[in-house]
Amino acid sequence: MSELQTYQGPATMEKITSLAKRRGFVFQSSEIYGGQNGAWDYGPLGVELKNRIARNWWKEMTRLHDEIVGLDAAILMHPRTWEASGHVENFTDPLVDCKKCKARFRADQIPPECAAEKKCPECGGELTGVRKFNLMFKTRIGPVESDDDSAVIYLRPETAQGIYVNYKNIMQSSRLKPPFGIAQIGKAFRNEIVTKNFIFRTCEFEQMEMQYFVKPGTDVEWFNEWRKRRWAYYEKLGVKTDHLRWHQHGADELAHYAKDAYDIEYLFPMGWKELEGVHNRSDYDLTRHTEYSGKDLQYIDQDDGNKEYTPFIIETSAGLTRTLLMLLCDAYDEEKVADKGGEDDYRTVLRFHPAVAPVTVAVLPLQKKDGLAELARDIHAELREDFATGYDQGGAIGRRYRRQDEAGTPFCVTVDYETKENSSVTLRFRDSMEQVRLPRAELASRLFQEIKAYKRTK
Amino acid sequence: MSELQTYQGPATMEKITSLAKRRGFVFQSSEIYGGQNGAWDYGPLGVELKNRIARNWWKEMTRLHDEIVGLDAAILMHPRTWEASGHVENFTDPLVDCKKCKARFRADQIPPECAAEKKCPECGGELTGVRKFNLMFKTRIGPVESDDDSAVIYLRPETAQGIYVNYKNIMQSSRLKPPFGIAQIGKAFRNEIVTKNFIFRTCEFEQMEMQYFVKPGTDVEWFNEWRKRRWAYYEKLGVKTDHLRWHQHGADELAHYAKDAYDIEYLFPMGWKELEGVHNRSDYDLTRHTEYSGKDLQYIDQDDGNKEYTPFIIETSAGLTRTLLMLLCDAYDEEKVADKGGEDDYRTVLRFHPAVAPVTVAVLPLQKKDGLAELARDIHAELREDFATGYDQGGAIGRRYRRQDEAGTPFCVTVDYETKENSSVTLRFRDSMEQVRLPRAELASRLFQEIKAYKRTK
Repeated sequence: MSELQTYQGPATMEKITSLAKRRGFVFQSSEIYGGQNGAWDYGPLGVELKNRIARNWWKEMTRLHDEIVGLDAAILMHPRTWEASGHVENFTDPLVDCKKCKARFRADQIPPECAAEKKCPECGGELTGVRKFNLMFKTRIGPVESDDDSAVIYLRPETAQGIYVNYKNIMQSSRLKPPFGIAQIGKAFRNEIVTKNFIFRTCEFEQMEMQYFVKPGTDVEWFNEWRKRRWAYYEKLGVKTDHLRWHQHGADELAHYAKDAYDIEYLFPMGWKELEGVHNRSDYDLTRHTEYSGKDLQYIDQDDGNKEYTPFIIETSAGLTRTLLMLLCDAYDEEKVADKGGEDDYRTVLRFHPAVAPVTVAVLPLQKKDGLAELARDIHAELREDFATGYDQGGAIGRRYRRQDEAGTPFCVTVDYETKENSSVTLRFRDSMEQVRLPRAELASRLFQEIKAYKRTK
Repeated sequence: MSELQTYQGPATMEKITSLAKRRGFVFQSSEIYGGQNGAWDYGPLGVELKNRIARNWWKEMTRLHDEIVGLDAAILMHPRTWEASGHVENFTDPLVDCKKCKARFRADQIPPECAAEKKCPECGGELTGVRKFNLMFKTRIGPVESDDDSAVIYLRPETAQGIYVNYKNIMQSSRLKPPFGIAQIGKAFRNEIVTKNFIFRTCEFEQMEMQYFVKPGTDVEWFNEWRKRRWAYYEKLGVKTDHLRWHQHGADELAHYAKDAYDIEYLFPMGWKELEGVHNRSDYDLTRHTEYSGKDLQYIDQDDGNKEYTPFIIETSAGLTRTLLMLLCDAYDEEKVADKGGEDDYRTVLRFHPAVAPVTVAVLPLQKKDGLAELARDIHAELREDFATGYDQGGAIGRRYRRQDEAGTPFCVTVDYETKENSSVTLRFRDSMEQVRLPRAELASRLFQEIKAYKRTK
């Protein structure tokens, strides 16, 4: 894998953003009011895609493991949490303000000539000195005077701390012992000065994290094991493996709590970017929470003469909304499908894995008339109990296939005149555009089978 | 249904809260730091229950309807949204402060004698006059001076507005026309002065809302239709119907935007309380957003000579976390199961519908030894791909059944010596405690069948 590899696929951020808006994956938040910077709304296809990514991750990370359980902690946590975690002190960007136009800049991103002269890059006004700007959103809670500091509370800037403060309650109520994991999907908020690349970096985002608690000394082994598993996860989802790579944090990048850290990076249209972090956080987190809460968070090992230890934590931390963007880019394809009157005819297709595609199967009557629509609706009603289905009867069948391709629907069922005669339907495969004829009665079981057997070939 | 009916069941809020903590349904948020008022964390069983309630609602409200689609809008919306909605002006509680101890009270909840003398009920200090206190949490966003009002942004106090501001984008990208609906599940935040009754009223909560856009004049018909459907939803979930009732808003309760409003109330241990609202919101919301955004939000009816109209909105708004509390109370039962040495033996059982139970099926080897544990793990591995499963090999089989009863697991599979001989297993039903023997090969299909056929009988 070369550092120099650049993106070669047909996706560009412009195409992805435009498709996302046009087909109802992602809208600008509060668009009718000019949009809210750094926030996005997930439309009908987007919310299904997001839910299915979340559900797939949840199954992979909790249901398929005896020793991993779930959690959903509140966004509003006790403020002491963020002192213990180090966020109050350290979660800052270095900022300068323009005294004249009041614009604010990241000190390390000002053009060198402006920085040297302490002049605002926008209006030429005088800049203040560098100040630390905390990225946590602050609010106030409860029935107290608004200038009383005791009421300050933060929107969590990461979900991980919710897991750490609950670890002992969970271990006890679920009768677990190390090694065990706690998984969580939830929102986090960061007052990012620069939001960019569509939904890649935003003020409001969702994380999918699993924190794995292990006996000190076994941490390196488990760290390597989780690196292997998380890589395999993306392979299983059919992500292009030549678009994935490992990035090990160098000594200068390593967070103060980390013993070792690797990121899985993906080759987005704008370059290689972090998708997920697998970090060996040592015993830093539980030690700090012990110190700040005064609670004993050690584990008493009954299998080892009641020796006590503070578990090490191996973290796998992925962005849900970032994974969604990655899958949009990864699935995006343009393909020549035919010659049309001497000109090439292209289709846009999203090659989503059936496990995450917003719509698994669409039912299309060849025509509305002659009872075909009624028959198709009947088949649709049968399938929708067990599958995420779509139904489309508007326009030429070829155009409807294209619409489903663009939404990433892996299977289409077409109902035609032969269906009326012998109860057979056509099953069309998105990737190959091949069609097979089969009895209606076998449709559901065939679909289950095709979903399980799916392998991406293009 | 009498207004005077009081709760007769075995559940009390104390028992529910204690069970919730002990079994890992719900923990106090940030408990190691003394807890965060008004916030709760959902533990391993709680997050599964919550996810399954959400998924069940989502399926009922989107997947089973051609004309209803989903949305997931951001929590941080453009602040103008809350001017249009009326929240900036009207979403307030009347509060008084004590000048001495700084405590804050709702003016309408102060004992009359204190109110008359303007004395603090807690310290006897002087009270301020009544002020309006807005319940929205406020924060500041972006690279501006912190005393600049333009940076103020709110945590949404309800999810509904996210639907209204996106309605036109969604209608167009999904090629819908009235009547159609948009469904959303998401968090909302209210700086409630008084949080109480466990997770019933909290500062951070989750809503499940569906907003249905209809042609004016058809609104009363759709309002009645959705009342019927929402009632049927709770019946389908097996909720005790004598614990459900309608409450119509009187003229004095009706919100300024509402033409008509009914709540579905549930008889909680602390009395009848709102569970869900079905409201005819008229064209108030879209009219206000048209006014404040300057965007035309009318629908052009091509089937009626291109006449334009502003759709009326029928809202069904339920609390997800409140539904979870309701289901905990509704499912809770204590039952005499045997005489034990002359004394009555009771079990605690949560009679969750299999569609929402955190664990659908638990696999239990009769003994750990003689290869039974390995055999049970093998069966467990087979089932976990398709079901939410549990595995438990610790302690006497009777105690393990009780543990599953208390977690609300509808089915247990027991693996014993006969399993080794003839590959048959025991399927135990939570509600009746009956057991049937069946071939292992038929287990999965039998479970699918039992889940579909489930009817609550106790």
